[in-house]
Amino acid sequence: MAINDLTIQPSEPARLPDKEPLGKDVSREAVVSGQSKSDARLVSIQRLLRRGAITNLAKMLARMHPADIANVIDHLSSLKEKREIFELVRGDVKRGQVLSELDGESITLVLSDLLPSDAAWLLKDLGSDDIAHILSVIPNDRAKDILALMRTEDSTEIADLLKYPKGTAGGIMTTEFFALSEDATAQEAIRRLQQATDAEMVFYIYVTDKDDRLVGVLSLRQLLTVPPATPLKNIMTRDLISVAVDMDQEEVSRQVASYNLLAIPVVERDGKLVGIITVDDVVDVIREEATEDMLKMAGAIEEDSMFKSSSMVAARVRLPWLFTNLVGSLLSGMLLWLFRYTIQEVVAIVSFIPVIAAMGGNVGLQSSTLIIRGLATGMVELTDVWKIFFREAKIAFLMGIACSLMLTIVGWLWHQVFLGMVVGVSLITAFLVSTSMATVMPIVLKRMGVDPAVAAGPFVTTANDITGIAIYLTLATIFLEQIR
Amino acid sequence: MAINDLTIQPSEPARLPDKEPLGKDVSREAVVSGQSKSDARLVSIQRLLRRGAITNLAKMLARMHPADIANVIDHLSSLKEKREIFELVRGDVKRGQVLSELDGESITLVLSDLLPSDAAWLLKDLGSDDIAHILSVIPNDRAKDILALMRTEDSTEIADLLKYPKGTAGGIMTTEFFALSEDATAQEAIRRLQQATDAEMVFYIYVTDKDDRLVGVLSLRQLLTVPPATPLKNIMTRDLISVAVDMDQEEVSRQVASYNLLAIPVVERDGKLVGIITVDDVVDVIREEATEDMLKMAGAIEEDSMFKSSSMVAARVRLPWLFTNLVGSLLSGMLLWLFRYTIQEVVAIVSFIPVIAAMGGNVGLQSSTLIIRGLATGMVELTDVWKIFFREAKIAFLMGIACSLMLTIVGWLWHQVFLGMVVGVSLITAFLVSTSMATVMPIVLKRMGVDPAVAAGPFVTTANDITGIAIYLTLATIFLEQIR
Repeated sequence: MAINDLTIQPSEPARLPDKEPLGKDVSREAVVSGQSKSDARLVSIQRLLRRGAITNLAKMLARMHPADIANVIDHLSSLKEKREIFELVRGDVKRGQVLSELDGESITLVLSDLLPSDAAWLLKDLGSDDIAHILSVIPNDRAKDILALMRTEDSTEIADLLKYPKGTAGGIMTTEFFALSEDATAQEAIRRLQQATDAEMVFYIYVTDKDDRLVGVLSLRQLLTVPPATPLKNIMTRDLISVAVDMDQEEVSRQVASYNLLAIPVVERDGKLVGIITVDDVVDVIREEATEDMLKMAGAIEEDSMFKSSSMVAARVRLPWLFTNLVGSLLSGMLLWLFRYTIQEVVAIVSFIPVIAAMGGNVGLQSSTLIIRGLATGMVELTDVWKIFFREAKIAFLMGIACSLMLTIVGWLWHQVFLGMVVGVSLITAFLVSTSMATVMPIVLKRMGVDPAVAAGPFVTTANDITGIAIYLTLATIFLEQIR
Repeated sequence: MAINDLTIQPSEPARLPDKEPLGKDVSREAVVSGQSKSDARLVSIQRLLRRGAITNLAKMLARMHPADIANVIDHLSSLKEKREIFELVRGDVKRGQVLSELDGESITLVLSDLLPSDAAWLLKDLGSDDIAHILSVIPNDRAKDILALMRTEDSTEIADLLKYPKGTAGGIMTTEFFALSEDATAQEAIRRLQQATDAEMVFYIYVTDKDDRLVGVLSLRQLLTVPPATPLKNIMTRDLISVAVDMDQEEVSRQVASYNLLAIPVVERDGKLVGIITVDDVVDVIREEATEDMLKMAGAIEEDSMFKSSSMVAARVRLPWLFTNLVGSLLSGMLLWLFRYTIQEVVAIVSFIPVIAAMGGNVGLQSSTLIIRGLATGMVELTDVWKIFFREAKIAFLMGIACSLMLTIVGWLWHQVFLGMVVGVSLITAFLVSTSMATVMPIVLKRMGVDPAVAAGPFVTTANDITGIAIYLTLATIFLEQIR
């Protein structure tokens, strides 16, 4: 979402020409009590809707921030109510802002009610990245109709943006940046700035050469502190951070975060400046990527996270992961069946099967979560492999000792001491095996270019469980005479 | 970390007076190839260190961004090497910036080598939030010595900041904001701006009344577009978003993210402006909170994530979670022991124990991850409870049907059809029970003010496993004649 679009004062149109990110509040309490307030707001809007209190609703919406209105619309369950609220928002500018904050489902719904010309009108004041996002979620034909009705310069820009793949710098950048020639003077720059209305990020002024290649950057404040006739090339910083248009959005967000930037310019292979990515979009990317990793680890892939898809679709999305687990646990079951004579001989063995089956996987999950998250945030480098491996193995060994001592005592009190010892030794072995796999797998996957979050998934966990049970039953069979 | 501190051009001191966030690059390739580059850089620095190629090292460091140097120091394993690299960084300003980007362990190490007066000198150009952070990680006595040697105005501010609890708005805010009286004119504001050197965020100009209460905000760009004599109160936006000094940092970050702000002002209960939080710190909070949630779900709590604590400490931190799991799985084991006659009668029952034990927990993990993450990002509101509950139950039921069909067939081919059916029915029941718990628990915890991420922890998972096994063995005992 564009920084400056959201923040226009909707109730005071006199301030509209200046599109700066100032923010607008619903009420002081909203800010203090936080999320519970947004719950309360949703409830009271639903109540007003059901009572048909249109005037009160419109008044309430007039005082609300577009992002909050969008949040309400996203959370309403009835399509009719979503439509009603959107229709009650006054003013095209504010309606456009609400639109840009909606989720995919609500965007499609709201735009399907409008004529393409009305939709084009709502979109006209939004940032090019927001427009491209909105058009990318609605049906293709409709997007084309709307695009055809926009100003030619806008529609060309947006059509260009739509060509970049999702998840790359090009896919999240905006084309509304403020760039000037290196020969322009500080005074000219200030004049241009006063006229510019659609540059999203006016905190940095990008400087380009004759071929539109990015050669420098300066800040608004620098302009104020030099004599008016100074050419930009004398005050600009030449050494600047930029990203390639095809860079992965996760890497872009890592750079913006680690260099503490407000915006990062995006360049083509030849150095031509084509867009900028602002920090607010980076914030969204960081949240999305964290969500994606967590869901991947739990085997519920991202699309499902919106709580919007039908139960059938959601079940289909989650089933493959569950089936893999099912097959894995059936393999463990086959091992138990293989050792059924041992089990029938000493039925006490079954008392520890759940322990052995669960604990290896748990220890592995601890290690793999640490490493997967470390790789995602850049805290773990691939060169750290061995250091981390030995550290995790040592921790697993220490915890294994503690747990097996406890198990030996439990085994002794419950059945007999030798069984407890067999369980204990199996547990330590299982811990070491599963930690090794949990540490090495994410790193191997990352090296192969696969998302390491997969490593916390069913394959590794299941493999750990099977290994644990195999070790336990083998030891139990070997020491059958002792544990009887 | 402060936005403007990091981005000074270290190799070109002539530009130092202007502390704007322009960013500096190491090399174009670094930006294009990303993380592998930081690996490569670490390796080549280690090589230069071991060869003793001090001149080359110093040259390389001079070209590197402070954040990248800090990253290298954090990842070096030998304390001696960490020290050597820090000592090779030229220029107090740059050294200060590197310091502000280091992790806690490296900060303590580097500062323990310096005289308090030298340390105070390094800190003097940093933002007050960065200084407060640095002083909060080193031993208390040392922090006091350093603080005593700083300029009185700085040290008072920092001592004030250190009083706010970690994790609150006060704990992450900076006191370097740019605020003017509402009666000042645009021209005065511009003049003040040209003189100001230590205001971290000059993109927003905050406006206060006689009692220092925040009454409005305006943007730098607004100043340029009005006649010079205009008083600020005529152009400022009065309706603005601010947060209370004791607000939880997670809620602050949610607000900055949802309203797309670059900075949010922090006020005392009486409305007095005391600081601002910039979006770069919000980015850090969002990453930290996501990491924390993931680690909490895997039972490895946050402090351990730094890969810095000793193995002993790490093991102690992770053990409680593991012990809870151990006890839980022992309870499952006791259930198996309780039903040992059933098992001895029909040993084929053991073939499905791993399936029943694992699958319920897995389905629950999918639901609880979705909900925990949704609550953290604000995508799920507490009012959505029932909608989500029924949706998740329906999904679990659909997946349960699919899995039990498969299990019935497997049971039929492997042992006999009735056993397969008992397994299938147990699985569907276990799915429904565990989804219900996984959906309801995070919401109940959130309502009680407990972090919902705990719900994915051992209690719920273990309870699910036990329930599944209890259902399975009870059904198997009831239908013992049929499955024999």
